[in-house]
Amino acid sequence: MEKVNVAVVGATGAVGREMVSILEERDFPFADLKLLATERSAGTIMNCKGEEYEVEVTTPESFEGIDIALFSAGSTASKNLAPEAVKRGAVVVDNSSAYRMDPEVPLVVPEVNPDDIFKNNGIIANPNCSTIQMVATLEPIYKAAGIKRIVVSTYQAVSGTGKDAMDELEEQTKSIANEEEVESEVYPHQISQNVLPHIDVFFDDGYTKEEKKMVNETKKIMGDDKIKVTATAARVPVSIGHAEAVNIEMEEELTADKARELLAQAPGVQVVDNPEENEYPMQINAEKTDDVLVGRIREDKTVDYGLDLWIVANNLRKGAALNTIQIAETLLQKS
Amino acid sequence: MEKVNVAVVGATGAVGREMVSILEERDFPFADLKLLATERSAGTIMNCKGEEYEVEVTTPESFEGIDIALFSAGSTASKNLAPEAVKRGAVVVDNSSAYRMDPEVPLVVPEVNPDDIFKNNGIIANPNCSTIQMVATLEPIYKAAGIKRIVVSTYQAVSGTGKDAMDELEEQTKSIANEEEVESEVYPHQISQNVLPHIDVFFDDGYTKEEKKMVNETKKIMGDDKIKVTATAARVPVSIGHAEAVNIEMEEELTADKARELLAQAPGVQVVDNPEENEYPMQINAEKTDDVLVGRIREDKTVDYGLDLWIVANNLRKGAALNTIQIAETLLQKS
Repeated sequence: MEKVNVAVVGATGAVGREMVSILEERDFPFADLKLLATERSAGTIMNCKGEEYEVEVTTPESFEGIDIALFSAGSTASKNLAPEAVKRGAVVVDNSSAYRMDPEVPLVVPEVNPDDIFKNNGIIANPNCSTIQMVATLEPIYKAAGIKRIVVSTYQAVSGTGKDAMDELEEQTKSIANEEEVESEVYPHQISQNVLPHIDVFFDDGYTKEEKKMVNETKKIMGDDKIKVTATAARVPVSIGHAEAVNIEMEEELTADKARELLAQAPGVQVVDNPEENEYPMQINAEKTDDVLVGRIREDKTVDYGLDLWIVANNLRKGAALNTIQIAETLLQKS
Repeated sequence: MEKVNVAVVGATGAVGREMVSILEERDFPFADLKLLATERSAGTIMNCKGEEYEVEVTTPESFEGIDIALFSAGSTASKNLAPEAVKRGAVVVDNSSAYRMDPEVPLVVPEVNPDDIFKNNGIIANPNCSTIQMVATLEPIYKAAGIKRIVVSTYQAVSGTGKDAMDELEEQTKSIANEEEVESEVYPHQISQNVLPHIDVFFDDGYTKEEKKMVNETKKIMGDDKIKVTATAARVPVSIGHAEAVNIEMEEELTADKARELLAQAPGVQVVDNPEENEYPMQINAEKTDDVLVGRIREDKTVDYGLDLWIVANNLRKGAALNTIQIAETLLQKS
C-alpha cells in the first residue's frame, strides 16, 4: 500500500480528535498529515504516531499535495472547501450532511456498500451516525430475508452534538446535585435528568431532520428505495454511545436464532445477546469497542415476519470518525 | 359523597408516599386513614390533611372496618393480604401486577374503561405505569379510527423501580463526577450515563415481563384482543417520568391534525405539540403535572393509516398513585 498525504479538516472537534487517534491506532499509512481547523483552534498542538502536529487554518491552498481529505467541520465548511480539495486532486471523505443525498456522491458504510466508494467524483459522504449502526446491523438480515419496513426509536448521546453538549450535560448534572439553577445553552431545554425528542431541525410534517436522515440515507446506502422507514430520534443524558430500538418487518421468515447466527458472522458487528446473564448492548460498553453491538433479538409475532433488535454503537467512532477512515482505507486497498 | 375508611398498604414507599400526598391534594373524603407498611417502616410519622399518622405493621386485622384499601407493596404482599382485606369487606385497588391478568379482576384506567370498576369481586387492579399513559392517550384515537398494531419503545425513569434506584442513580452520578468507582446494587449494570434495555425479568422468547405487560394489559384495558402490540422497554438515567415513542397503524385514516384535535379534548391528556417553539413532552415537565403529555404527532406514511406520537407522564402519579386513587374516586362517586 502506497503512502498518501492526509488532511483532517475540523481536527480539534469531538469527531476530528477521534479521527486523529484512529489514524494512529490503525496505523493508517500516511506520508504526511495536515491538521486543519478554524482560526480559533489554529496553533493547537496534537500528537499522532509519536509526532507533533500544529493545527493550521484551513484555506483552499491547504489541500495542495493532499491525497485524502477527511472532513468533519460541519456542512458549511464542507460545501465551501470540499470542492477546493477535489480541484487540487484530493479525494474527500465528508462526515457532514452536505453531500449525502447528492446523487453524484456515494454514501457509504463499508460493511454494506463498499463498491460505491469507487463510483466517486472526488467526494464520498459518510452517513449520519444513527443510520450507520442501523444499516451495518440490518445488512445481513436484508440479504437473507429482505426488509419491507423499519420502525426505529433512538436513544442518542450528547456527543453527537459536540464537545459543548458534553460539557453542558456535565455542568447541568453538577448544578442539579448542588441544587443550583440549571442553564441550557446548547440545547433548548435541560438535558440532564431529561430526554429530548428533538434532534436537528423540524420539518413541516412534524419529523426532524435527524429522523429524515434515517429514512433517506438507509434507502441510499442499502440501494433499495422500497424499504420503508419511520423514525423517532431522541437525545438521552448519556455522553457517548447511541442506542436504537429497531423493529423490522421482513419479506421472508427469519428466526431470531438464524438472525443471531448471521449477525455473529457479520463484519463490524458483535452479538451481545444473553439475557439470562443480563448481557445486552449498552452505551457503557460501546464506548470501548469499534463494533456495532446488537442484542435483544426476538421474533415479533405482530406481523408475518418480524424481528425486534437493540443496537448500540460508539457514535463518535463507528458513527463518525471510524467509518470515515474505513472508507479511506478501502479506497487505498483497491487503488 | 359518604366518607369512607381508607388504608394505604406500602405507605412509606415511593408510590405510597405519592398516594398519601394525592389523598390530601384531591381532598379525598376519608373518615379514617390507616397507613400500613412492613416492620422496618412501622412507627414512621406521616402527615395528611393536617393530621399526623403513625405507620403500623400490616396484618390481616389491619383491614377491620376499612372500606377501601390502596395497595402498593409489591406482588407478594398483595397476594397475601388483599384477600384478607376483601374478606373483611374492603374493596382493594391494587397497584402490583399480582391480579392484573386475572379474568375475575378488572384492570382499569378511568379515562378508558371506568365501567369495569363496578364489575369487581373485591379487587380492582391498577395497570403497569407504561401501559397507563399509552392507553389513556390512544383511547380517543382508537374510538375514532381503530388501532391494528402498536410498536412502542420506552424511556423509563428509575423511580419506577423505587426509592433505592433513585438513590443509586444519584450516587453513581456523583461517583462519575468525582472519578470514583461506580457501584451497582439495584440494577445489574451502571444506570448513570447509560441506558438499560432491561426492565423486569426475561422470558424465553427474549421479551421482558415489562414488555409483555404492555402487550397484554393494553388488550385487556382497551377490551380488544385483536390489537397487536410489540414493545421494547428501556431504563434511562432520569429520576421521574416515563417517555414513549409510539407508532400506530390504524384501521381508518386519521390525520395528525384530527388526532391533535381529539387528544386536546381527551380527559387527563394534554397536547404539547408546537415544534416550531421547541415545545414537546419532556420528563422535566411531566414531574409537575398529573396529565399525560402527548406531542410529536405526525403521520407515518410507511403504512396506509399510520401515526407516530411521543407520550410522557409522571410514572409515580398517573402511572401509579394517581390512577389508583382515581379508581377509588370513581368507585365512590357511583356507589
